Amino acid sequence: MAPTAETHANDHTVRSFDAELDRLSNTVVRAGGLVEAQLAAALQALVKRDAALAAEVSAKDNEVDALDQEIQDHAVRLLALRQPVAEDLRHIVGALRIAGDLERIGDYAANVARRSLVVNQSPPVKAITALARMARLAQEIVKDVLDAYVERDVDRAIVVWRRDEELDALHTSLFQELVSYMMEDSRNITACSHLMFIAKNLERIGDHATNIAETVHYLALGRPLRAARPKGAEVPTEPSSGPESPT
Amino acid sequence: MAPTAETHANDHTVRSFDAELDRLSNTVVRAGGLVEAQLAAALQALVKRDAALAAEVSAKDNEVDALDQEIQDHAVRLLALRQPVAEDLRHIVGALRIAGDLERIGDYAANVARRSLVVNQSPPVKAITALARMARLAQEIVKDVLDAYVERDVDRAIVVWRRDEELDALHTSLFQELVSYMMEDSRNITACSHLMFIAKNLERIGDHATNIAETVHYLALGRPLRAARPKGAEVPTEPSSGPESPT
Repeated sequence: MAPTAETHANDHTVRSFDAELDRLSNTVVRAGGLVEAQLAAALQALVKRDAALAAEVSAKDNEVDALDQEIQDHAVRLLALRQPVAEDLRHIVGALRIAGDLERIGDYAANVARRSLVVNQSPPVKAITALARMARLAQEIVKDVLDAYVERDVDRAIVVWRRDEELDALHTSLFQELVSYMMEDSRNITACSHLMFIAKNLERIGDHATNIAETVHYLALGRPLRAARPKGAEVPTEPSSGPESPT
Repeated sequence: MAPTAETHANDHTVRSFDAELDRLSNTVVRAGGLVEAQLAAALQALVKRDAALAAEVSAKDNEVDALDQEIQDHAVRLLALRQPVAEDLRHIVGALRIAGDLERIGDYAANVARRSLVVNQSPPVKAITALARMARLAQEIVKDVLDAYVERDVDRAIVVWRRDEELDALHTSLFQELVSYMMEDSRNITACSHLMFIAKNLERIGDHATNIAETVHYLALGRPLRAARPKGAEVPTEPSSGPESPT
């Protein structure tokens, strides 16, 4: 059948909608890249005791917030103007959700940077090594889940989702380690208190990466990833604070 | 003009859509009531050292999560089937956002309950009084913002939004108080570490109430509440951790 004027117009609308959806995804990927860089810089500021870098990370959090706002506005505009259904709707709702998670990861990274300024007013504590291990894992998880989003790779998303357990285990043991340093020497108390919150931030970053993994699953398959949640079912977002393991 | 069959059908569609929107709002209000009750019970468990109540709050967090999921599913269904615009679209997007914030407040309440079990294995620390004051304020803020949502009362939402500053100030001074108790006597360290996280949870609850206040503003007026954010602009969600006041 030869194309009519009408099918031409529809083709055009469909193409321009696809381009809008791609633009939305690209902004999400851009926000993801920025958040990864912020997290890496925050952790470097902590480990290298680099106050200038910490200040830079703190200041740059605005950029993450601005990208999140851009995604929210764009998504709501697309919902209103295009009234999408099925996969396109999931595409937009997924971008909204992931943007929210990235914004929170960015906040936690900025908070790590700010706390590093206080921690580094005290002499170094040994726990920094265990914290660095936890930090590396958090960074890997964030990187992997963003790759899974770009590739719409459900298997990779599920791997991330499961690895969050490792991060929770590291967090629990680090908490105990910090308590014992505080007990050993009261001059460690202020620094270790902030290190506890830094560790908690990393653990929360893992939870948000897990949320993103679930969104990638929903985006690709249209149904939620809920079967075998690796954490205790009753403590989905504060996993290390259950009655059994209340750190 | 006499009603035609078509206007009858439209009336019916409009009425049934309105009923759906009301049902969505009602579920949000129901989730709000449950979260308020969870927070009150968690704080009572802490202050009265009531382990049975703490366990009950922890178990009931599932109900909050289920309501959140119900709202998310209903909202996405309405977006897909009704393709709403303007005020109706804001109504649905607003419900989605508020449900997310309530789910987080519920998580923080459950976490307070769980941590109270550990805190209450140690002898009482004096800081409980200051914490109770912070808790009362957090409860008031949550109650007020839910009332503002029910009434679509923008002025009341703005009052909540400003009061979050008080909560942040209480949090900062409580953190210092807890550090000094830990330094005084190392037997306080474990309990005080958990009290620090409980205080932080209350402070975060205030941030989520602030988010809800912003959503009420957006729902009612169709534009964001951003003018004179009471907190330091660069630390919107971790306010008490800025370089000036890094608790």
